[in-house]
Amino acid sequence: MIEPLPSGSVVGILGGGQLGRMLAVAASRLGYRAHIFEPGAAPAADVAHAWTRAGYDDADALRTFAASCDVVTYEFENIPAASLDLLAGAAPFHPNRRALEVSQDRLTEKDFLAGLGLAVAPYAAIEGPGDLEAALAETGVPAILKTRRFGYDGKGQARVTAREEAEAALATLEGAPAIAEGFVTFSKEISVIAARGLDGSVAAYDPGENVHVDGILSTTTVPAAIPAALRTDAVLLASRILTALDYVGVMGVELFVTRTGLVVNEIAPRVHNSGHWTQAGCAVDQFEQHVRAITGWPLGDGTRHADVVMENLIGADVARAPALAAERGVQVHLYGKAETRPGRKMGHVNRVTGPAR
Amino acid sequence: MIEPLPSGSVVGILGGGQLGRMLAVAASRLGYRAHIFEPGAAPAADVAHAWTRAGYDDADALRTFAASCDVVTYEFENIPAASLDLLAGAAPFHPNRRALEVSQDRLTEKDFLAGLGLAVAPYAAIEGPGDLEAALAETGVPAILKTRRFGYDGKGQARVTAREEAEAALATLEGAPAIAEGFVTFSKEISVIAARGLDGSVAAYDPGENVHVDGILSTTTVPAAIPAALRTDAVLLASRILTALDYVGVMGVELFVTRTGLVVNEIAPRVHNSGHWTQAGCAVDQFEQHVRAITGWPLGDGTRHADVVMENLIGADVARAPALAAERGVQVHLYGKAETRPGRKMGHVNRVTGPAR
Repeated sequence: MIEPLPSGSVVGILGGGQLGRMLAVAASRLGYRAHIFEPGAAPAADVAHAWTRAGYDDADALRTFAASCDVVTYEFENIPAASLDLLAGAAPFHPNRRALEVSQDRLTEKDFLAGLGLAVAPYAAIEGPGDLEAALAETGVPAILKTRRFGYDGKGQARVTAREEAEAALATLEGAPAIAEGFVTFSKEISVIAARGLDGSVAAYDPGENVHVDGILSTTTVPAAIPAALRTDAVLLASRILTALDYVGVMGVELFVTRTGLVVNEIAPRVHNSGHWTQAGCAVDQFEQHVRAITGWPLGDGTRHADVVMENLIGADVARAPALAAERGVQVHLYGKAETRPGRKMGHVNRVTGPAR
Repeated sequence: MIEPLPSGSVVGILGGGQLGRMLAVAASRLGYRAHIFEPGAAPAADVAHAWTRAGYDDADALRTFAASCDVVTYEFENIPAASLDLLAGAAPFHPNRRALEVSQDRLTEKDFLAGLGLAVAPYAAIEGPGDLEAALAETGVPAILKTRRFGYDGKGQARVTAREEAEAALATLEGAPAIAEGFVTFSKEISVIAARGLDGSVAAYDPGENVHVDGILSTTTVPAAIPAALRTDAVLLASRILTALDYVGVMGVELFVTRTGLVVNEIAPRVHNSGHWTQAGCAVDQFEQHVRAITGWPLGDGTRHADVVMENLIGADVARAPALAAERGVQVHLYGKAETRPGRKMGHVNRVTGPAR
């Protein structure tokens, strides 16, 4: 067995949002102290031992930060490559750079997944307007144009419902390298939260069933209403991805359920919004699982002991929190963000609907 | 409905040990920031927004601390009365002073409980050796002599198994005002963790069954193996105590199960070690419940969705944590204490043994 980092060790976290906040709390449960690196507002700093407030281009700050940490991880995937160069070698870094490179670029990601033999939506690269015709021939129409990099929660996307709209749609992406993605006819969206430890062991939680509204996750429900065979497929598929990347930490894998099986939508090399239900449904939640993985603890086995519905509180939804808290089995998580804005994730609730069926 | 304190408010916590640490984490879940007041080492400071490191006799520090807080609470009951005088009026303070006064003094506590008509062990006050004979006539022998104030985890206690040992036993208490307590023949020790909100509503968790080793809690198991009627008795009894004290917050009530019903052992006006199982068994754990109570949120209803065994990691036990973490359904909580000492609470594990029966 690998010896875990000793109590009192410092877990560095790039990014200070709600995921960093919940990772910092999980680190504390294992006796660790969190050090947040975040240039902007940092809800995570409220529960951290230290906060370096500096930009990702601040070489001195990054080096000093890394030198103070016993391990470094991150809560978001859009970390600039130059920052990774600066961090390299200063402290163990998980999940690894390859995982970031794959997930930072939609084209690289699709090529990687397809290369593993996994089903993905039809796709094609678009460098400029001249590529549109061939790309849409590959994907069919309707399709979605997406920037290859830096998209999230539906941002950096444009829908093409007819060929003649394609150039205008591409123009909204402002010249960024892009891909065209065909539509997949699916009955449900599910996701698997899986983890791989330093010793190569893999553990996955039950797939959750996701509902998105306006491109943002609204609810995740466990158990997902899918056949047992599909649950097994989902977990095995996630396991193949983790192992292929020699991954250490928690990953979120978004999947479409189709008539011909599971299609991989995208992967996120970090704890994932669709795994928040584990806070109420499992002995070891996804945040502790991630900290366990990167610090050398054995992984939790992912057993679920409760049925849960997770609901995001987006923008003004947060005002509903006290009323929701009065309902049976509802656990509230607010992120301590200073300002409520439309479309901003302000918190979530986990509703325990009963002991696990 | 009472409006809860707004997100970003500061929850002041007197005491920076593991209970303060877990309260600070719970405060963060509701969007609050924790401010710890602790003169010594403060594991809680690792997850707090601020830490005032000063003594309880430092009037300026106490006043400045209270002025920075929107509400003040505490993680231990032995706060000096003079400190309470300094805090008075600066910020709302929960649980109230009466609850502290009752629980700080074993004689006051017994008088209070007996005054409510609740069964307690036979007891008598001891001011000095001259009171011993009458006191032991009241309690019978064997008995335990306990200092009235500042005892915990078996400290400040001396057993009297025969009358002729009484003076020597009392001498070990070094002249402190004391009580004699008779033995209660019991089949089990249980405890109830109950809460009362700012609106007077009360919620209780299922009683847990406790096993002590060397005067220190070793395990708590839920459900306790007791008849349903006793569970109800336990909850009603806790509710009477909370209401009589006009209490706001979480309280731990330790009970003996005897052939003639429940006997109250002691009360603790705070989150309690025997309630740590709620972290794995309930949507709203005792720490969040306490923060909800003192900040004006509705209370969680206490529903338990899993069976749990909580085990304390005392002293060198903490080295077992990684092996325990590898077992199914085990959640680890380490307190981040710098030094391992015999008898010191270093952490605990919650083992989910299955969905609630």
